Amino acid sequence: MHSLSSQAVRPLSLPFARSHYFRRFLPLSLPIFHNSKSHPKIFTITPKAPVMTIRNCSSISAKPSSELRNKRSSSDSSDEKLRALRQLFSKPGVGIDAYIIPSQDAHQSEFIAECYMRRTFISGFTGSAGTAVVTKDKAALWTDGRYFLQAEKQLSSSWILMRAGSLGVPTTIEWLNNVLAPGGRVGIDPFLFSSEAAEELKQGIAKKNHELVFLYDKNLVDEVWNESRPKPPNKPVRVHDLKYAGVDVASKLLSLRSELADAGSSAIIISMLDEVAWLLNLRGSDVPHSPVMYAYLIVEIDKAKLFIDTSKVSTKVMDHLKQAGIELLPYDSILSEVESLAAQGAKVWMDISSLNAAIVNTFNSACERYYESLESKRKSKSDDSNGWSGGPTGIYRVSPVSLAKAVKNDSELEGMQSCHLRDAAALVQFWVWMEEKINENVKLTEVEVAEKLLEFRSAQSGFLDTSFDTISGSGANGAIIHYRAEPDSCSVVDDKKLFLLDSGGQYVDGTTDITRTVHFGEPTSRQKECFTRVLQGHIALDEAVFPENMPGFVLDAFARSSLWKIGLDYRHGTGHGVGAALNVHEGPQGISFRFGNMTPLQKGMIVSNEPGYYEDHAFGIRIENLLVVKEVNTPNRFGGISYLGFEKLTFVPIQAKMIDLSLLSAAEFDWLNDYHSQVWEKVSPLVEGSARQWLWDNTRPLVKQ
Amino acid sequence: MHSLSSQAVRPLSLPFARSHYFRRFLPLSLPIFHNSKSHPKIFTITPKAPVMTIRNCSSISAKPSSELRNKRSSSDSSDEKLRALRQLFSKPGVGIDAYIIPSQDAHQSEFIAECYMRRTFISGFTGSAGTAVVTKDKAALWTDGRYFLQAEKQLSSSWILMRAGSLGVPTTIEWLNNVLAPGGRVGIDPFLFSSEAAEELKQGIAKKNHELVFLYDKNLVDEVWNESRPKPPNKPVRVHDLKYAGVDVASKLLSLRSELADAGSSAIIISMLDEVAWLLNLRGSDVPHSPVMYAYLIVEIDKAKLFIDTSKVSTKVMDHLKQAGIELLPYDSILSEVESLAAQGAKVWMDISSLNAAIVNTFNSACERYYESLESKRKSKSDDSNGWSGGPTGIYRVSPVSLAKAVKNDSELEGMQSCHLRDAAALVQFWVWMEEKINENVKLTEVEVAEKLLEFRSAQSGFLDTSFDTISGSGANGAIIHYRAEPDSCSVVDDKKLFLLDSGGQYVDGTTDITRTVHFGEPTSRQKECFTRVLQGHIALDEAVFPENMPGFVLDAFARSSLWKIGLDYRHGTGHGVGAALNVHEGPQGISFRFGNMTPLQKGMIVSNEPGYYEDHAFGIRIENLLVVKEVNTPNRFGGISYLGFEKLTFVPIQAKMIDLSLLSAAEFDWLNDYHSQVWEKVSPLVEGSARQWLWDNTRPLVKQ
Repeated sequence: MHSLSSQAVRPLSLPFARSHYFRRFLPLSLPIFHNSKSHPKIFTITPKAPVMTIRNCSSISAKPSSELRNKRSSSDSSDEKLRALRQLFSKPGVGIDAYIIPSQDAHQSEFIAECYMRRTFISGFTGSAGTAVVTKDKAALWTDGRYFLQAEKQLSSSWILMRAGSLGVPTTIEWLNNVLAPGGRVGIDPFLFSSEAAEELKQGIAKKNHELVFLYDKNLVDEVWNESRPKPPNKPVRVHDLKYAGVDVASKLLSLRSELADAGSSAIIISMLDEVAWLLNLRGSDVPHSPVMYAYLIVEIDKAKLFIDTSKVSTKVMDHLKQAGIELLPYDSILSEVESLAAQGAKVWMDISSLNAAIVNTFNSACERYYESLESKRKSKSDDSNGWSGGPTGIYRVSPVSLAKAVKNDSELEGMQSCHLRDAAALVQFWVWMEEKINENVKLTEVEVAEKLLEFRSAQSGFLDTSFDTISGSGANGAIIHYRAEPDSCSVVDDKKLFLLDSGGQYVDGTTDITRTVHFGEPTSRQKECFTRVLQGHIALDEAVFPENMPGFVLDAFARSSLWKIGLDYRHGTGHGVGAALNVHEGPQGISFRFGNMTPLQKGMIVSNEPGYYEDHAFGIRIENLLVVKEVNTPNRFGGISYLGFEKLTFVPIQAKMIDLSLLSAAEFDWLNDYHSQVWEKVSPLVEGSARQWLWDNTRPLVKQ
Repeated sequence: MHSLSSQAVRPLSLPFARSHYFRRFLPLSLPIFHNSKSHPKIFTITPKAPVMTIRNCSSISAKPSSELRNKRSSSDSSDEKLRALRQLFSKPGVGIDAYIIPSQDAHQSEFIAECYMRRTFISGFTGSAGTAVVTKDKAALWTDGRYFLQAEKQLSSSWILMRAGSLGVPTTIEWLNNVLAPGGRVGIDPFLFSSEAAEELKQGIAKKNHELVFLYDKNLVDEVWNESRPKPPNKPVRVHDLKYAGVDVASKLLSLRSELADAGSSAIIISMLDEVAWLLNLRGSDVPHSPVMYAYLIVEIDKAKLFIDTSKVSTKVMDHLKQAGIELLPYDSILSEVESLAAQGAKVWMDISSLNAAIVNTFNSACERYYESLESKRKSKSDDSNGWSGGPTGIYRVSPVSLAKAVKNDSELEGMQSCHLRDAAALVQFWVWMEEKINENVKLTEVEVAEKLLEFRSAQSGFLDTSFDTISGSGANGAIIHYRAEPDSCSVVDDKKLFLLDSGGQYVDGTTDITRTVHFGEPTSRQKECFTRVLQGHIALDEAVFPENMPGFVLDAFARSSLWKIGLDYRHGTGHGVGAALNVHEGPQGISFRFGNMTPLQKGMIVSNEPGYYEDHAFGIRIENLLVVKEVNTPNRFGGISYLGFEKLTFVPIQAKMIDLSLLSAAEFDWLNDYHSQVWEKVSPLVEGSARQWLWDNTRPLVKQ
């Protein structure tokens, strides 16, 4: 089996030739400023339940995040902001011809804090995905098909809407190369671009001799925003209890340090917020949906430093960190610490697909200064000793924390199992309520339904937040894969249409993500056939057994096979990783038709199982459970290896009336009855009254006609 | 979908920097002189029915070919040959320190003529796969696990046996780099290495400053062989009737020339024997098992030249060629013609994975001379005109004939269908005979059985040859995937053991390849379970429906899924391409767990469907049919594309007593009965008497217990 990982872990330790090592590394990665949606990548992160998005893909990708709702800029204020921004272009120390404002924060987060929503502020466009580019006389905003209508409404006439992916629409690079006079200076905030993305941008605009200018000191949009800019989040950080985390910080650091040593590294810089949270057994509330806090972490062989707004850190958390030998430093001091790492000759492990360009560039510049000063010292002293081998180096590899975090330990799995049952209880109560309201002919909108679901979830112990914005899609809205109901425009849920509900919760002990599709009246035979085939795909993946060391994409076809038989398919991956009381979308594993992700599925990993089918302007179907990869006790072990399979985390009934039983094989029929009997057994102790009755009605064994 | 083809067709037209373009092209290809069996490659050619071998993989691959049986060299004669060969090392114009003798002919053929079996002659080792390397004081032979015992017996004490793939055994490059003093000269016959392989070798030995020396003039082994060397084959070439070929030569050339024009090429050199045969609607008898003739072909925009021993060409064939505007030239004049292509400034399309190093190097050297002379002319005449754009160029791409040949037209498919029914009739007669003999307690060896099968096939109209050496494996021998029974050592076929029979025929209208596994007594329940799971995999692939533009590897898991459920698997691919009255193994498509082959399956392609299971020292199971990719008339066409599936070519009963019916789903059970009813319907008209009765007994509907 040909594993990409051998490429991904090859150290490229060239302290000088930056453009050179980038060129060697980049062919593996997504050309983010080009229209190449189908390019496979190691990290494929799913922005909403089923998925297609790719980390760092700022210009065209889907990055759901909470949006600024009540801030529709009038045309005047938009022009005013642009004018103010352009004035800064010619300030001393700036001197640029264009400025790019992406959606990202400094940590490549899926969900970001309001103070970092600079693209929304400057453009007035509140969609989660978009890139703004402002030149001295033009302003353009790129977004994808989900947001064309919204952007048309929200952008003032000063803005050109770039419908990314549409025929003839240029990429940001192509547009810049077209509108700027050759030799232009394009400014960015280097914190908001991954190092990889910045390099790609740099090379793209270099074709027209434009220069990419890193403006470290101040984000220009923040200067315009000024007083009215929301403060950075400062909610308190909490310790993630060892009974949920399973492994203490000292042990995690020990493992990490051993990996560092194996790789010849003396330090690693970690910027992904979920990686910092996982490694330190900490949780935060800085962004919606993900229990993380803004921070960087540097782990060295003999010490570790957390860069964080210390006002968030209580004495208890302080003690917890001290015990693990972790020093606290201000969030903003990360760059100066990166510089001293270089000055001390550290060999620094950096994942340039997630680390921002400010950090990587600062380290590399400091390395260059180190070697220059060494060179001049040697010249002046005619020193023959070779100080090079002791010098600083960047070691470019995929973060080892990503994989360590993906493979769950027993305590994490226990928490996941437990919160999934409480989540199931909330859903059962919700479905009962729904059916009652529908029976009473109460008019319910998609948004009201989502709010009611949140109410039921909130009543469960340990509930913290939704794990993403609920997708509540009635009828044709269900066919919009990334649908988000808005109060003023959303549809009614009734007994005439299919209803797709994709939602999840963040609990103190785990994270859930579940989709069910139901009909409150009589589904058509077409809807039943499609639903049944989606279910057959769901069952085929659920029951798969496969040899260890196999990338997830090999299983993707199992989930599509039944749909393919009648010429149907779905345009998203089948499974994404899920964090344990962390991000609802995490890598590095995945189950997708994108063959580029060669990460083998491993025992303890969690993946979603969510095949679907979407009929434009009619209905959408998706059935999603979360699964844990487990070892299967097969009677044979051909090749002397382990064989793996899945164990379900999600226990919520699948609506029987949607199933055309005549299409099911005996084995599929048995699967369904077996699943429902498990649902009853596990969830019935958690509900009572009408909910318990509903659960019984919806889990009792079906009889084959 | 990420298609490798975009890489494969990227023109690399650098007339000078040879080492440079090779380095760019090579990462796609197999490092053949290294132990990297698992490396994926565009062309994966299956040497025996199920398969693992890779074109050009001289040192460790399986290239079954007819072998020199009665020529066991004594130790004395082997030493004598080595002495004679070494004497040539110091001849004027040679001057080498080592000579590599691979198994190949000049066309990368799977089956080769006896006069080209130089490695067998020099070493005495008759196995199909092996590479000999002779230095001034050492001689070593690399072969793989299948041949260790045989090589031990056949090699004299002058030879070191290199057990390729075993721990600690060096590759040929490693060994050369180890035993030669730095700066050595390693000679090869450049006709016997693909250009790609030679470049890899060159780079590998350059690490120790060794030089790769191309000895064009005469193969050194041939000089030693001398008088006793068999003459090159000169059997007459015949025209492949248009009713079988379907498309005339003029039309094929028209399409090819349009592809050349699209690629900016003015000529193409074709060396794969099946490509030449297919393009010219010719067939030959120069090698066993493949109806091809030794020849090269150069197609230019306005002319075409066939390089062939003209004594093979009858007046009828001559007329056929003349009609298509094809000129005849002596086989040996290929290099001088390649030189004149360069001199004329041709842009030559070359597939460096199949074209030999002699041709590619000759072209490139001629290009260099062209530009040097241009440069000196410009200097002397102070000529400012730029002659460069008009100059010769090599355009490095996968051969377009390979794909064109793989997609069969209606006439080719009709011939394939027809010959498969006659082949089935022969097999039915054979199985009846087998059962009778076993019942009579006649002792039959594996070899006798294979010979009898050939007898039945030979009686069918249009039969020409076996399409590969029959694999006739009784009991434990069935578990040796590449087993070849030898008269003096083979086992008996009886009613105590499983019997695996993988065989095929070349007919005037098509090519067959079929495997059945049977038991003449009572199979164990273990054997039945394994057989049934292999059958379930076979059925799953047979019934698959999938979107167009999908590489075959996506379907591979379907064929393994049932085995995986109990922890079993098989170590070979599931399907290979098959030529129409041509090579039994052809590319570019395949169905395999090697994810490197991104060639999409296309309507009209033929693939084998041959899952298996092999229990070491016990038994082997394989069930193989050939399938044609066809468009399926699905009720939907999601994405506006076609959905594809398979149509069977092979119609021979699957032994019911081997099946554990309780494991089959209702759909699988129906598949089996439906298949057998088709077998009866199609094959019963071709057999009579006891064969017809046997066919009825073995195809009548089974009843689910």
